Amino acid sequence: MKIVALAGGGGGAKLVYGLAQVLKPSDLTVIVNTGDDFEHYGLYICPDLDSVCYSLAEIDEPSTGWGRAKDNYQSLDEAVKLGGPDWFKIGNKDLGTHLERTRRLKEGQKLSEITRNFCEIWGINCAVIPMTDDKVSTIITTSEMGEMPFQEYFVHQKYQPVIRSIKYSGSNNAKPVPALIEALAAASLVIISPSNPWVSIDPILSVNGIKEIICQKKVIAVSPIIQGTALKGPASKMFFELGIKPSAEAVLDHYHELIGGFVFDQLDITLKGKMGQKGIITLSIDTIMHDKLDKVRLAEKIIKFSETI
Amino acid sequence: MKIVALAGGGGGAKLVYGLAQVLKPSDLTVIVNTGDDFEHYGLYICPDLDSVCYSLAEIDEPSTGWGRAKDNYQSLDEAVKLGGPDWFKIGNKDLGTHLERTRRLKEGQKLSEITRNFCEIWGINCAVIPMTDDKVSTIITTSEMGEMPFQEYFVHQKYQPVIRSIKYSGSNNAKPVPALIEALAAASLVIISPSNPWVSIDPILSVNGIKEIICQKKVIAVSPIIQGTALKGPASKMFFELGIKPSAEAVLDHYHELIGGFVFDQLDITLKGKMGQKGIITLSIDTIMHDKLDKVRLAEKIIKFSETI
Repeated sequence: MKIVALAGGGGGAKLVYGLAQVLKPSDLTVIVNTGDDFEHYGLYICPDLDSVCYSLAEIDEPSTGWGRAKDNYQSLDEAVKLGGPDWFKIGNKDLGTHLERTRRLKEGQKLSEITRNFCEIWGINCAVIPMTDDKVSTIITTSEMGEMPFQEYFVHQKYQPVIRSIKYSGSNNAKPVPALIEALAAASLVIISPSNPWVSIDPILSVNGIKEIICQKKVIAVSPIIQGTALKGPASKMFFELGIKPSAEAVLDHYHELIGGFVFDQLDITLKGKMGQKGIITLSIDTIMHDKLDKVRLAEKIIKFSETI
Repeated sequence: MKIVALAGGGGGAKLVYGLAQVLKPSDLTVIVNTGDDFEHYGLYICPDLDSVCYSLAEIDEPSTGWGRAKDNYQSLDEAVKLGGPDWFKIGNKDLGTHLERTRRLKEGQKLSEITRNFCEIWGINCAVIPMTDDKVSTIITTSEMGEMPFQEYFVHQKYQPVIRSIKYSGSNNAKPVPALIEALAAASLVIISPSNPWVSIDPILSVNGIKEIICQKKVIAVSPIIQGTALKGPASKMFFELGIKPSAEAVLDHYHELIGGFVFDQLDITLKGKMGQKGIITLSIDTIMHDKLDKVRLAEKIIKFSETI
């Protein structure tokens, strides 16, 4: 059973860890959002790709959900002493990733090749593929401060500005990575992980051709919204500011055209009856992933649930 | 007494430390070679500027002569694990300098501004000025391997390839930093520090207008060659391969047109009589700088010697 998971950082990185424990490596492909990628201190940084890879390689820092385990900040501290920005935390081990990725990109290697090779070195056996080798930038238009790239909004401004709209700049001209299209074509299930729909999943779907193939597949989405709020990050705030009451139901509606199955948290008791009427098969379980066992358990339940669709 | 010192790394960085202890900060300007500067891992690295600044700020590592004191190599180690080159050692603290310098250069700041600001932050009170804000690259033509940029020759190839010629690519179009010209105009003494004449001092002299002003000044050069060899680096090998027997005398001949005074090591006893006949006033003393006291002592003796010229 070939499965493709779409993932951002956070919940996506957690769920794909669980999937990787449950599936044969050759049966799992993870397609990762690169709309958050940005250049900082001259280095090319891919926050979601790194979160997913660090999680899969078990070298992630669970306390933060980003960066390498037990990292230190000596280089960044020195740069900050010299007047550099401190809002994006880069640890020393993490910096090694950005240095070598930047070096290879400048040498002309593609992000997908680099990622494949990094995964080999990190001992990651499933396929991790960036959504595109082209530049796509998630741009947030805010009421107070105009347009800003995602990391500026998310990390620097701590997602406080009110959102007016979101665009995926460059996606019209972006080509999906060929290996990603092959994996989607061969997949019998696509899982939309519990990442932010607006800024983690939609950028992937905005790349030419990806949505079209996914439409033809059995697709299950997992809600990142539990009891009207996201465990982490601006997902619920974004729904609200874009005029939609944040809820698992709103997530289901967001993915309505794509999905055949929907997983939402058991804490959303009041939604249970309502969800059944949407023509999409739903599963209400504990979706919160505190530890590795939770991640594996959720992955197992999603796969089992897929057999009922 | 306004003094301008020309310096590369190594002996230059040591001597300017001594000069900074002896002179009023407003009386000392250091002009630093940038011909060695290069891009590595996407970062803009200025080896000589950093050696000079780290030395002046007393944050240098005396055991190596480059880099920050007691640095560690965690980021580089991670990059190397991912397939990156390991031949140029960048410590974590040192990396902070390259990160912030690269960020500012990309923002459009000039290298001379950045250096001035870094010096303020590091508590360096004398002026440290890169020879130019334009790109000048010292290119080594070797017999076996053709042309290569200096760091490739010096660090990666460990200066083993035989040299045919040296050029300072871009120097025809490079403009000296204006503050440097002002400092030279106001100087009553120019000291050519015991750095490599071919690849540390000559690149500075290759920048339009610098040699012309220095010619009008009282200039003292300090020989980096002692008993036919350099304490460190390829200076003597370069003299030899360029067809000149390496010696303090060869250094004096190299700078002949520019200098009024010449300091060479007391170990070169056999040269003592010979040097006097060259029409240049010479001083033969202990020029080896093991520690800070040596650096201060040499600086004092050079300044005293300048009064006799």
